[in-house]
Amino acid sequence: MDTSASTIAAATAPNGINGTVNGHTHKEKVTIVGSGNWGSAIASIAAKNTLRHSKQFDPEVIMWIFEEDYEGKPLSQVINETHENPRYLPGIHLGDNVIAQPNMEEALKDATALIFVLPHQFLRGVLKQLKGKVNENARAVSLIKGVDVQGHMIKTFPALISEELGISCSSLSGANIANEVAQEKFSESTLGVPAPEGFTDDVNHLPDAMLWKPLFDTKTFRINVVPDVEGVGLCGALKNIVAVAAGFVDGLDWGSNAKAAIMRIGMNEVKDFCLEYFPTTQAATFLEESCGIADIITSSLGGRNRQVAEAMVKRGKTFHELEPEMLKGQKLQGPQTALDVHEFLLTKGTKRPNGYPLFEAVWKICYEDAKPETLIDNL
Amino acid sequence: MDTSASTIAAATAPNGINGTVNGHTHKEKVTIVGSGNWGSAIASIAAKNTLRHSKQFDPEVIMWIFEEDYEGKPLSQVINETHENPRYLPGIHLGDNVIAQPNMEEALKDATALIFVLPHQFLRGVLKQLKGKVNENARAVSLIKGVDVQGHMIKTFPALISEELGISCSSLSGANIANEVAQEKFSESTLGVPAPEGFTDDVNHLPDAMLWKPLFDTKTFRINVVPDVEGVGLCGALKNIVAVAAGFVDGLDWGSNAKAAIMRIGMNEVKDFCLEYFPTTQAATFLEESCGIADIITSSLGGRNRQVAEAMVKRGKTFHELEPEMLKGQKLQGPQTALDVHEFLLTKGTKRPNGYPLFEAVWKICYEDAKPETLIDNL
Ligand SMILES: NC(=O)c1ccc[n+]([C@@H]2O[C@H](COP(=O)([O-])OP(=O)(O)OC[C@H]3O[C@@H](n4cnc5c(N)ncnc54)[C@H](O)[C@@H]3O)[C@@H](O)[C@H]2O)c1
Ligand SMILES: NC(=O)c1ccc[n+]([C@@H]2O[C@H](COP(=O)([O-])OP(=O)(O)OC[C@H]3O[C@@H](n4cnc5c(N)ncnc54)[C@H](O)[C@@H]3O)[C@@H](O)[C@H]2O)c1
Repeated sequence: MDTSASTIAAATAPNGINGTVNGHTHKEKVTIVGSGNWGSAIASIAAKNTLRHSKQFDPEVIMWIFEEDYEGKPLSQVINETHENPRYLPGIHLGDNVIAQPNMEEALKDATALIFVLPHQFLRGVLKQLKGKVNENARAVSLIKGVDVQGHMIKTFPALISEELGISCSSLSGANIANEVAQEKFSESTLGVPAPEGFTDDVNHLPDAMLWKPLFDTKTFRINVVPDVEGVGLCGALKNIVAVAAGFVDGLDWGSNAKAAIMRIGMNEVKDFCLEYFPTTQAATFLEESCGIADIITSSLGGRNRQVAEAMVKRGKTFHELEPEMLKGQKLQGPQTALDVHEFLLTKGTKRPNGYPLFEAVWKICYEDAKPETLIDNL
Repeated sequence: MDTSASTIAAATAPNGINGTVNGHTHKEKVTIVGSGNWGSAIASIAAKNTLRHSKQFDPEVIMWIFEEDYEGKPLSQVINETHENPRYLPGIHLGDNVIAQPNMEEALKDATALIFVLPHQFLRGVLKQLKGKVNENARAVSLIKGVDVQGHMIKTFPALISEELGISCSSLSGANIANEVAQEKFSESTLGVPAPEGFTDDVNHLPDAMLWKPLFDTKTFRINVVPDVEGVGLCGALKNIVAVAAGFVDGLDWGSNAKAAIMRIGMNEVKDFCLEYFPTTQAATFLEESCGIADIITSSLGGRNRQVAEAMVKRGKTFHELEPEMLKGQKLQGPQTALDVHEFLLTKGTKRPNGYPLFEAVWKICYEDAKPETLIDNL
């Protein structure tokens, strides 16, 4: 539960304007930490909304960029000249008010609204660089899918960011493919914001909702607010286990009844797992929101986890064998998450009489050479 | 709420055996009313289970058949000679203990477990024939998808059957394609049974659960019981509106984010509609069960409603124009259900501030020539 000074200031300030500094009302200043496919898509949305809500936001959107070369020039220079990120989101105009900035200290200067949107493996490194350099009245939101695993502990990224930087952190997740969002195809996302315990009023009036919703919500990218930061953060990791299971069903040619059954069972295990171990989470986040059921649906129909799992069955190979040829150097998240959950459950135990049989079956098929047909044995 | 003598007898009888008649313990006698694609698939399952649970059930499964000619012979004769229904479920052995019976009175004799599995338009006619001829200690289950609409009133089929015959009626519905179930591909279905108000014990011990679950549940066709007859009955009708909406999204090429969003929004409207107007229904039936979210998923990915709706957009035709060429004489249920719900809402009004915008948009696109793009305008 977040009750930091900054969020309370925001709550009482009119129009969601972020308090006053030296007697001057100042505007929210947005910095995006990450500039890949999703970071760039979000930059294009934020850049429209800072202009639209010009009383609340400084128009400039800073995008911190991990510098790299693009056709002989620094990528940041290319972006600032063309207002496009040709490496990670070609063909989309980012907005003239998006500024790529490779220097982290520069990027952070005056930032009050920090959007974290990096591949998860880079987050801890970046947080180390940021420590002590972030405005104390800043707030953050995590768009990163996955969870932080240290030993047998599972932590959400918003919790990690909040802990490391000492600021409030929300989370945004949904059935979102960056290119579709950037092309302004209709989609939805769920914003989880901190709420005082027992809060029952309109969630849109929560301080962090009043910051992030205006920054992200558009006619084609609809933001729904829930008072559940952890739940929104967890969905984006656990859905990958379900997507692997769905891929096995495809590989086995079990048909659409079975596929729908696995998605349903998977969604219920995600929900039950989170309710058992993350006491602030709420069932509705998983069952009713875009970050829950909708993201499970898209990931189980498209997506890499599903695809590799299908190939495991059809070609009789392990995911270790398929990763290099199918993913060009990227790592598959579903099996790893199944392993993390398996080890977590070994340590923690479970009160559920039947445990989490779908999660466990996915782990066993990926890591213990169990036959894919065993997927349903203990359901 | 069912508290008829028969269900109470069953509840107290050992092993779920259906009471005693003239001092003799007698077994449940199963009659299936309907012998099409789904009726035949269910016959093959029931026939296995009456043998498996031979203490509880008479082995013979009677299948009432609307007689027709099949290659010069009565279909009932073909079925009884070959133990297959070549017209509606070719290639599946029904079980030697399935007996096709074209005479309704014969089919009903001694029946205590009546399974209704006809296309909905034939139900009222059949119920008229059955009135007064059904054992008073019989129980029924409806596998019929759809709702009964008289004027502006919407009634579920289990409620109609119960009223017309004066017996208890459960409902069974799920993400079930008859051919996949008959081929023993993994699938699930939801059984809604009557429960006393405030019931909190194990639903599997409810009298009607103890009758129907053993008759339907197999290793590959998993039955989950919920104490919500109406909810299970309603899902199978309302999901067709969602499937039409999903078809529009496909026609518009809006991509997978939008498709998942529409399924999610649709599921929530189904739930909210049922909770508003059918007070015995429970949110979990829609959100967590096969008859709810899983059936919405399969119908929105495959199925006729989706397919015709996609063609409406891509070919710029009305569903009236497409029905004859795409459905070979069958009627599309989604648009009709959207119309039924629209008229129902006009009469009843709604307490929801925003109404049911997805349902209404589907109605408007199907019947008022609204542009498919307007689907999301009021969401
Ligand atoms: N792409 C999508 O459609 C999408 C949608 C929703 C959520 N997400 C999530 O958003 C997050 C970011 O995904 P993405 O698709 O934008 O990633 P991406 O693979 O497109 O981006 C890679 C980014 O990482 C940067 N990078 C490379 N090495 C680095 C280092 N050592 N330190 C810091 N940064 C480094 C690159 O410069 C680049 O900006 C992920 O958690 C992802 O799951 C992605
Ligand atoms: N087929 C499936 O995969 C499936 C799955 C789940 C639920 N259902 C539902 O089950 C119900 C039955 O569907 P189905 O697919 O078995 O139908 P079907 O179209 O295969 O069956 C048609 C049946 O209707 C009978 N019939 C024809 N005229 C009749 C009349 N005048 N009076 C009485 N009966 C007549 C035919 O003899 C035949 O048995 C429907 O409500 C359907 O939505 C079907």
